[in-house]
Amino acid sequence: MNSLEEVTDFVQNGHQEYLPHVTIDPVIFGYHDQQLRILLLKWKGLNGWGLPGGFIRRREPLSQAAHRVLNERTGLDDLFLQQFHVFGDSPYRLQERSAREFKENYGLEVSDDNWLFERTLSIGYFALVDYSKVSVTTDFFTEGYQWWDVKEIPPILFDQNETVDKALTTLRLQIYHQPIGYNLLPEKFTLPEIHTLYETILGKTLDQRNFAKKLVSLGLIKKLAEQRSIGPHRSPYLYQFEKEAYEDALKLGIVHTY
Amino acid sequence: MNSLEEVTDFVQNGHQEYLPHVTIDPVIFGYHDQQLRILLLKWKGLNGWGLPGGFIRRREPLSQAAHRVLNERTGLDDLFLQQFHVFGDSPYRLQERSAREFKENYGLEVSDDNWLFERTLSIGYFALVDYSKVSVTTDFFTEGYQWWDVKEIPPILFDQNETVDKALTTLRLQIYHQPIGYNLLPEKFTLPEIHTLYETILGKTLDQRNFAKKLVSLGLIKKLAEQRSIGPHRSPYLYQFEKEAYEDALKLGIVHTY
Repeated sequence: MNSLEEVTDFVQNGHQEYLPHVTIDPVIFGYHDQQLRILLLKWKGLNGWGLPGGFIRRREPLSQAAHRVLNERTGLDDLFLQQFHVFGDSPYRLQERSAREFKENYGLEVSDDNWLFERTLSIGYFALVDYSKVSVTTDFFTEGYQWWDVKEIPPILFDQNETVDKALTTLRLQIYHQPIGYNLLPEKFTLPEIHTLYETILGKTLDQRNFAKKLVSLGLIKKLAEQRSIGPHRSPYLYQFEKEAYEDALKLGIVHTY
Repeated sequence: MNSLEEVTDFVQNGHQEYLPHVTIDPVIFGYHDQQLRILLLKWKGLNGWGLPGGFIRRREPLSQAAHRVLNERTGLDDLFLQQFHVFGDSPYRLQERSAREFKENYGLEVSDDNWLFERTLSIGYFALVDYSKVSVTTDFFTEGYQWWDVKEIPPILFDQNETVDKALTTLRLQIYHQPIGYNLLPEKFTLPEIHTLYETILGKTLDQRNFAKKLVSLGLIKKLAEQRSIGPHRSPYLYQFEKEAYEDALKLGIVHTY
């Protein structure tokens, strides 16, 4: 939504096109050059930062809605968006909003029974991109955007600090069971490359020798016969994600092989 | 809900008390005596089996709603219910229902714009109990219940076979990262006891020696200095879940220690 007319129509008639009570809130992690960041939008009117969220269309598949919402709010496309949690317990999620609050924030006159004033649940999705390789475009609700370092996340509007925390915990747990980062590394990578990626995502130092041994023994990566020449006397072996073997294992519901 | 009056009121006025568009559907796994089963209810009017689901109250925390719904539909209480996925992509979830369908199934006259005819999303929760230790009581919508072996799940109403499959996959993945089964085993257990539990949940044979070694090396269980005497010359060592160490690790977002 980019014009005041579109937004006014959304506020007044949006309940005909969208399901009330449920929003989608994407947490976009950006990795580049040993930094892990999160994309936040500066909300117009609310004077604070938030996730690029939105509502689901009445007849729209949920996962398609997640992609559309992210695209409409940020211009980002073709990300691997993964659902991770529904939020419906926080004080914010139990509360309903008011016409007064709405008028103060956006200057829009609306009636007290507007569909946007009711309680919402929030479905969290996350994705991981190289933030140096994408460009962000924003919409009517947004004054600007910023990729925030995960170690310096500001207070976010609504209950979305909880959403970001849970996304980060989930990402860190899944890093050992899923080929996370396989779109952030070259198809064939060296141990130092994946080691740096994992250290950055986990936010801690990992013993390099044990790290590689574990990833191989968990079946997440495999050592190739190839080496990469990066200088005199320096030609480290290359590795590759075991994506297929991993996906087969996931279908059987088994990651570790006993 | 147990009387026709309550149900009629729910159908006609339920939108004042409940959020439309979102249901909660609990998958209750029961483990006992080397069997893994799932609790299904026989729906009155629909002639088929379903999960014990229901709607969320307008001002009710989501996780509290999950416990209430399960309790109202089955009498079960105090389970560790874990949210695992929101379903909103299946053909069933994209479809809206009709007054005619409703009249045919339940004999209730309702207007075409009834709140129950709109599309719903379904939030899946699961829990694991010893089915020999709980008793089930059902409500108006239910003709009977049955604990079905997971290897013989019948076609379930709506899109709920997908819900059950996803719950089982999630349970099987989490078994290596969470102290699953810690309420199904004695506080101190032998290796054969936990080995049988894991084989049953995973639905496959596990090498006993590697199995124990892995669980210990993952930090999920620890060997105690105690032994249990179960007969002449038979006194296996006892083990315990590393629940605290595990929960600390979960908060840090790390399961494996590199």
